[in-house]
Amino acid sequence: MSTVDAAILKEIVGENNVRDNEADLYVYGSDSSVHEAMPWIIVRPENTEQVQAILRYANTDKIPVIPRGSGSGMCGQVVPIRGGIVLDMKGMNRILDINLKDAYCLVEPGVIDDDLNRALKPHGFFYPPTPASSRIATIGGEIANNASGTRSVKYGAVRDSLLGLKAVLGNAELVSLGTTTRVSASGYPLERLLVGSEGTLAIIVEAAMRFVPIPEFRCLGIAKFDKLADAGDAISEIISSGCQPSMLELVDKVAITAVNKSMGLDLPDVEAILIFEADGMVKQAVDYEIDKVKAVCEKNHGFGIEVSYEEKERTKIFAGRKKLFPALSKYDEFLSSTALADDMAVPFSKMAETANKIHEVADKYGIVMTAYGHCGSGCMHTKILMDTTKGEQWEAAQKAVIEIYEYVRSIGGTTSAEHGIGLSKAPAFKKEKESTLELMRSIKRVFDPNDILNPGKLMDAPDDWLTATHLRYKVGE
Amino acid sequence: MSTVDAAILKEIVGENNVRDNEADLYVYGSDSSVHEAMPWIIVRPENTEQVQAILRYANTDKIPVIPRGSGSGMCGQVVPIRGGIVLDMKGMNRILDINLKDAYCLVEPGVIDDDLNRALKPHGFFYPPTPASSRIATIGGEIANNASGTRSVKYGAVRDSLLGLKAVLGNAELVSLGTTTRVSASGYPLERLLVGSEGTLAIIVEAAMRFVPIPEFRCLGIAKFDKLADAGDAISEIISSGCQPSMLELVDKVAITAVNKSMGLDLPDVEAILIFEADGMVKQAVDYEIDKVKAVCEKNHGFGIEVSYEEKERTKIFAGRKKLFPALSKYDEFLSSTALADDMAVPFSKMAETANKIHEVADKYGIVMTAYGHCGSGCMHTKILMDTTKGEQWEAAQKAVIEIYEYVRSIGGTTSAEHGIGLSKAPAFKKEKESTLELMRSIKRVFDPNDILNPGKLMDAPDDWLTATHLRYKVGE
Repeated sequence: MSTVDAAILKEIVGENNVRDNEADLYVYGSDSSVHEAMPWIIVRPENTEQVQAILRYANTDKIPVIPRGSGSGMCGQVVPIRGGIVLDMKGMNRILDINLKDAYCLVEPGVIDDDLNRALKPHGFFYPPTPASSRIATIGGEIANNASGTRSVKYGAVRDSLLGLKAVLGNAELVSLGTTTRVSASGYPLERLLVGSEGTLAIIVEAAMRFVPIPEFRCLGIAKFDKLADAGDAISEIISSGCQPSMLELVDKVAITAVNKSMGLDLPDVEAILIFEADGMVKQAVDYEIDKVKAVCEKNHGFGIEVSYEEKERTKIFAGRKKLFPALSKYDEFLSSTALADDMAVPFSKMAETANKIHEVADKYGIVMTAYGHCGSGCMHTKILMDTTKGEQWEAAQKAVIEIYEYVRSIGGTTSAEHGIGLSKAPAFKKEKESTLELMRSIKRVFDPNDILNPGKLMDAPDDWLTATHLRYKVGE
Repeated sequence: MSTVDAAILKEIVGENNVRDNEADLYVYGSDSSVHEAMPWIIVRPENTEQVQAILRYANTDKIPVIPRGSGSGMCGQVVPIRGGIVLDMKGMNRILDINLKDAYCLVEPGVIDDDLNRALKPHGFFYPPTPASSRIATIGGEIANNASGTRSVKYGAVRDSLLGLKAVLGNAELVSLGTTTRVSASGYPLERLLVGSEGTLAIIVEAAMRFVPIPEFRCLGIAKFDKLADAGDAISEIISSGCQPSMLELVDKVAITAVNKSMGLDLPDVEAILIFEADGMVKQAVDYEIDKVKAVCEKNHGFGIEVSYEEKERTKIFAGRKKLFPALSKYDEFLSSTALADDMAVPFSKMAETANKIHEVADKYGIVMTAYGHCGSGCMHTKILMDTTKGEQWEAAQKAVIEIYEYVRSIGGTTSAEHGIGLSKAPAFKKEKESTLELMRSIKRVFDPNDILNPGKLMDAPDDWLTATHLRYKVGE
C-alpha cells in the first residue's frame, strides 16, 4: 500500500526515527477524535533541516505529510486520510530560550504546554492559553488549532500569545514570519495566518510566544442555579457589566449527573452550576471582581454561592469541572463519549439558549448530550454519549450535529471555539465559511502548491464524515 | 492624464460624492508622510454596494483604487503613486451596533477612533488601541495598519481587539471573515491577515471589535535619568520583573529640548525621562504597580520621581510627551519634522542602545534626530528634523535611515511598530522580509488578481523612495 521509500527517510532522520511496523502505524492512525486512517510511515525529525529534507522528498512524489504533536486533537486533524508520512514533531521539543529581558520565549513545536509552564514558573511567569489537555498538548499543535482554555476569558487564545514563527512551506522552503518584538506593523501578519491552519499551510519549526506574570492571588467560586436560563443571563451580565473574571465555566445538569454517577462526587443536584475565578497581584482587586460576579449571580437567582482563596478548597470546587471529561467516558458502559459538535463558540447572551437547544435536539434524536464549557469566552462544549457499534446511533448523532450547527450559525456563532475543524467539523465549517472556501484553497496553493501538507482537511475535507472517512469504531458488529 | 470615467462613478455614488477638481486632488494627493502623488479622482462611497460597484468598474479598466481614512498615515500608505481612484471611506462612518450583552461593537471603516470611544464611554467601556492621532484616525485605517499607542503595553494593538470583518476583495466580491464571538478555531484567520495589509488585499467595509472596561483609577508618574542607558535598563527591568504598567514612555534629551524650546514648557533638563502609568478598578492594585515601577526606576538611578492620581496633575506630567509631536514641527523655522525611520519596534533590552545609535547616526550625518516612544511595547519613535529644500539633507537623511534600519534588523527589531510601511519604509521592509516577499505577492494575487488595490505599496513599493516616488517637498528650489 505504501508508496514511500523508508530508506530515503532513514537516511534523513536516522534508522531510529522511522517506524513502519503495523503496531506503530495503528497508534498514529488515530487521535482523540472518532476518526482513524493508517499512515504509510512515521518519521520523527529532530531539527529543521530534517523537516526540509523530508518535504523535498515528499514533494518529488507528492506524498502527503501530516505534522502531528501528541494527538490530543478531537476532530481528526492529524488522521492521515490520504495516507502518507506522519511527522512526529515531538522529536523537536527543546525550549530554546526564555528571554526575560525581552519578554518572550522561543520553543520548538514539540514542547509540551505543561513543560513550558514548569520552565517559566521559577521566573514568576506563565504561558496562559493552556487547554485542558496541557499535560500532553504541544505548543505546535496549539498554534495550529488556535487553542484556548479555561483562562482565555482573561488571557486570550494562542493567537494572542504568538509573536513570531519559523515554518517550512510545502516546497520545503524555510521562512521566518512575525517578530519577537511586542508589536509590529510590518506588513501582512503571515505568522497569524498559520494560527488555526491545522498543518495545511506550513510546518511550524519554532515559535516565539509571550508570557504573563503569575498572579499572587486566585479566588475560585461556585454558584448554583435552578434554571439554566438564569445561569445564562448571569453569564451575559457578568461580561456586559465589565467584570473581568479569569475563569467562567458552565456545567449543566447532564454533566453534573455524569460526574456524580461516574466519579462518586457529590455535586449539587441543580440545573446548572457556574464556576468562576478572579486573579490578581493584589487581594483587594481579586475581591472586587469576585464580589461583582457574586452580585450578578445573586441578582439572577444564583444560590449556594461559595468562594475560596485556599488552593485545597479551590481544587475541591473545581474537581467537578475537571473530572467532567473522564466522567463522560464512564457515564455508561455501553455508551462512548464522542467529540461531535463538541465546541461551538456562541454569543455570550446565547449560552443558555444554546445549552437548551442541545438538550432539545438530543431528546429529539434519542441520544445523550451534555452542555458545558468556558462560557467566559463564549465556548460551548458538548459530548455525544452513544453506543458506537450501532449504525442508527451514528445516524441520529449526525442528524443532531447538523441541526445544532444550523442553530449555531443562525445565532451568529462559529463552528469551533478551540478544538479546530479537522474532519469531524468540516461539513459545518464548509457551510459556515462558504463564501471564503475558494479563497482558502487559493491560499493553500500559495503555501503548498503540490497539496502535500495534511491534505483533505478543513475546506478540502469530505462532506460526509460518516461514510466518506474512516471511523475508529466498528459500526454494526 | 486621468483615464477614469467620472460619469460612471457619479452614477454609482451620486454627483456630490465624486470630486476631480485640482484643489481636491491636491488635498488627497498627500497624507502625513513626506510623499505626494495626484489621484485621478476622489470617490466617497456611502455603503458596501457602492464599494462593490466601484471595484467592478475599476477591474474592467484595471484602475488603481486606494482606500483612505483621514490620511493620518505617516509612510505614504494612501498616496496614489500610480494614480487612480482614491476611495474616501469617511462616507461610511456609522457605528452600527454597540452590543453590550455579547461584548463587541460593529462599525463602518470611516468611524473616527475618538467618536467610537465617546459612544462607548457612557457604557463604561473603551476601545483601547488608540494611537496619538485618535482625533482623526479611522478604525478602518487603524486595522489596515495594525495601529497601537501609548496604552498598548497593557491592552495590545488593533490585532488584539479585532474579532471579525466584512471586506470587498479586488474582484468586487464581498466576504465575511472571522466572527463576532470572543474565540474561534474555525480555520484560517483571514480577518487577521488583513491587519497590516494597508489596503492592498481588500477594502474593509465593516469591523467587529472588542472593548474593555474603563478603569476606575489611573496613576501617572515621571522619573528622570542622567544617563539614557539607565532609563533603558529600567525599561527592560520593568518588563522582566512582571510589572504591568498601562503606559511606559521614553523621552530623550533632543525631544526634551524641542518641547521646552517650542512650547515654552519647563521639562527637566536631563538625558532621559520615563513617563509611566498604571490603571485598575481598585486603587490598591494601581498602587502596587506604581510602587513596583518606582522601585525599579530608583534602582536604576532614576530620580525626581513624581506620581499622581489627579487628572489635572496627570495632564500636566503628560503634557511634555503629548506636545512632543507638534513641538518637533516648531523646533526651528528652517527645519521640517519628517517621518523617516520613524517607528521601529525593538527588543525591550535594546531601547537605550537604539536611542544612542540614533543619536550617533544623526551626529555622523549632521542631522537632528529625536528618540522617544512607547517603550512599554518596544516601540521607538524618531523624527528627522531637516531643511527639506536641500538635496544634500535628503541624501544625509537617506544614509542615516539606511544605517538605522540595518542596526534595527541586527538586534532583532522590525521596521515598523505601529505606523506601517507604505512607501517610506518599503526599502527597509523589503530587506527585513526578503524571504517572504514572493509569498506576500502571491497572496496579493489571490485577493486582488488585477492588482488594483493600492498598487505599488509594501513589497511592491519602489526601492528608492528618494528618487522613485514623489516627495511633497520642492527639493533644490
